[in-house]
Amino acid sequence: MNPRITDETTHNNKSCRHFAQRMAKTPRSFIREILKVTENPSIISFAGGLPNPALIDVKGISLAAATVLEQDGPSVLQYSTTEGYLPLRQFIAERYKKRLGLSVSPGEILITNGSQQCLDLIGKVFIDNRDHIAIERPGYLGAIQAFSLYEPVFHPVNLNDNGLDPGMLAHVLDAHRVKLFYGIPNSQNPSGITYSNDRRQELASVMGNTDTLFVEDDAYGELNFSGKSLLSMRKFLLDQTIITGSFSKILAPGMRLGWVVAPPDIMEQLVIAKQASDLHSNYLSQRIAFQYLHQQNIDDHIQKICQVYKTQCHLMIDMIREKFPESVNFTEPKGGMFVWLTLPEGISSTEVFEQSLKKGVAVLPGTPFYTDGGGGNTIRLNFSNSTEQKIITGMERFSNVLNTLM
Amino acid sequence: MNPRITDETTHNNKSCRHFAQRMAKTPRSFIREILKVTENPSIISFAGGLPNPALIDVKGISLAAATVLEQDGPSVLQYSTTEGYLPLRQFIAERYKKRLGLSVSPGEILITNGSQQCLDLIGKVFIDNRDHIAIERPGYLGAIQAFSLYEPVFHPVNLNDNGLDPGMLAHVLDAHRVKLFYGIPNSQNPSGITYSNDRRQELASVMGNTDTLFVEDDAYGELNFSGKSLLSMRKFLLDQTIITGSFSKILAPGMRLGWVVAPPDIMEQLVIAKQASDLHSNYLSQRIAFQYLHQQNIDDHIQKICQVYKTQCHLMIDMIREKFPESVNFTEPKGGMFVWLTLPEGISSTEVFEQSLKKGVAVLPGTPFYTDGGGGNTIRLNFSNSTEQKIITGMERFSNVLNTLM
Repeated sequence: MNPRITDETTHNNKSCRHFAQRMAKTPRSFIREILKVTENPSIISFAGGLPNPALIDVKGISLAAATVLEQDGPSVLQYSTTEGYLPLRQFIAERYKKRLGLSVSPGEILITNGSQQCLDLIGKVFIDNRDHIAIERPGYLGAIQAFSLYEPVFHPVNLNDNGLDPGMLAHVLDAHRVKLFYGIPNSQNPSGITYSNDRRQELASVMGNTDTLFVEDDAYGELNFSGKSLLSMRKFLLDQTIITGSFSKILAPGMRLGWVVAPPDIMEQLVIAKQASDLHSNYLSQRIAFQYLHQQNIDDHIQKICQVYKTQCHLMIDMIREKFPESVNFTEPKGGMFVWLTLPEGISSTEVFEQSLKKGVAVLPGTPFYTDGGGGNTIRLNFSNSTEQKIITGMERFSNVLNTLM
Repeated sequence: MNPRITDETTHNNKSCRHFAQRMAKTPRSFIREILKVTENPSIISFAGGLPNPALIDVKGISLAAATVLEQDGPSVLQYSTTEGYLPLRQFIAERYKKRLGLSVSPGEILITNGSQQCLDLIGKVFIDNRDHIAIERPGYLGAIQAFSLYEPVFHPVNLNDNGLDPGMLAHVLDAHRVKLFYGIPNSQNPSGITYSNDRRQELASVMGNTDTLFVEDDAYGELNFSGKSLLSMRKFLLDQTIITGSFSKILAPGMRLGWVVAPPDIMEQLVIAKQASDLHSNYLSQRIAFQYLHQQNIDDHIQKICQVYKTQCHLMIDMIREKFPESVNFTEPKGGMFVWLTLPEGISSTEVFEQSLKKGVAVLPGTPFYTDGGGGNTIRLNFSNSTEQKIITGMERFSNVLNTLM
């Protein structure tokens, strides 16, 4: 009856912790591990996925923060509603109308901690153990991680130049009861591929006869080099589409603000899941973001980001054309933050990664984006987070490695 | 092959959505529903659980926000690490040493979106479908919601004046393989009960021979009217204790900052779960909080909060003694934000709630805090979010209802 009070700092290894089964199925982010390696400032990194910090409007955000705290301090710092700040949801709804011609009501929008949390909430609401879900091949690692916690069976569907392969999707939907398909139609992560409008229509016709949901991750839709937006899947599949959006790429990632758009019956469940997960999203950030959007011209700001990323992207592509072995395939992104390389069969991207690191440049091997163990000869390059000079120097180094290895 | 583009705003009711089974098991927060009812300003509400907004240091937080954005803007607004801002974790670790004599390393601390998210992460890491967990009776509704998503079997364990019933806990641990016990030893929500030090030691001796984890929710540990802290369960059960903490009650809830303390092998899993859930917590808030704690004297601020809450609590208790029927039992909190009422058997708290609302005062029926359908004659009263005048007027109204009904 008298347990000893411990004040040691050494822990005993509890040999038999009983973690939930889902934890054994969830990959730790290889990307975050790599980012630790590349903290060395002499290494030029194309491995991460960060926005260019020079394009964050610190002054505008500081002004917005000072304004809301001055005008409405105690309320801005108090608990708030699970759904999120209504004027911010109204702003998002109006922007969908203006930008994409979509009719979305604020009641169909829930504010989340970045769009990554949308994936967790969607997993909570839809995925039972061993449920079937479909995902792009290669697919976004963050989604693979988030959904893995709910223990689904993944069915990867190939991407080609115009987007997802509709025949392969049809085959998967025929063969299994697929609860949802998750994809990024605009400037996909990791491939940089954008689905054409025709392809979107084809996919809608494949899915229209099923009750499979289309989860449209639109984190990069505003980072569109041409300024011309493509159609949302919600245009075709109103009650079958969930859209996820993010302020991380157009405002600031550190504010952790994203949102999910869903039909009312799904939204009701998402709100319950959100409430149980963390009550509500950071209210201070929500108020700052809305104030910023009200005080500043976000369209001008986005145009500026797109201009810079377009220049950086084209520079990277020019370097690839000029310096890389001809047998290296590459995508030509219409927006977003990534270029995708496919090396000849038999060349290992892990080997390329290791050799590159020795030469002072970090790239990201593509295997974590495959749920079926493929992609051993693929590499993701990020262009948003490097200056032009770093792109030139880094791509020089990287092309030397490739030319030596191949 | 030509699906019609929709631009209607009316949704078809998809009659057969296939939500995950867990959603049917997760209660929507009755509290949040009630809060909607009580938005009417003529109603005095003791139903919620909000801190007193007059005690949020808006000026200090504004200064901290301006400072970090001025000094380190682009970094403060960029993506950051999953674990959280290291200096903030160091501050928390040092405070545990100073306040509770606990040796905690910053590596054993993960920053979360309020302490509610800790519960979601603990659920993810530990609870498989049909796993057994134990919880206080009555238990914190937010925990019941968070854990319900992972579909455990709940075993409620009674609370009495000195804390959790050790005999009943022993019985539950004998009868089932219990993965974790969740409780709030300091100023429990909803009951206001604080476990005595002796009781903590007894509970440790019951649990020491098992591998059941003690999840110690310490949201209210700093809201301690006597200023004397009690022992953390980690003092007894170093490798079996997970502590959750929160800045919501001492700094500001709208910043959504909490943390979880766990032994290294558990922390590793929590970090993976956090990464998959939302990458990392709001970095702007973390930086503001740390700057605030560095610039201001948090001890003085907490002392001020405790002084006000103590006065409000004692006023509420005095009103109960003076005005309520003698057959109403009540707790006498040593801290926190809540008083708990037990009405005589047969008196329905839902009926009391409805009658009270008609008289302009809102109280919270206790049933949502019971996982076994009990508590029909219990009521939670919040004293932190009302001025003294409102407590006097509200308790007058409420006592009239009770005296009429009983």
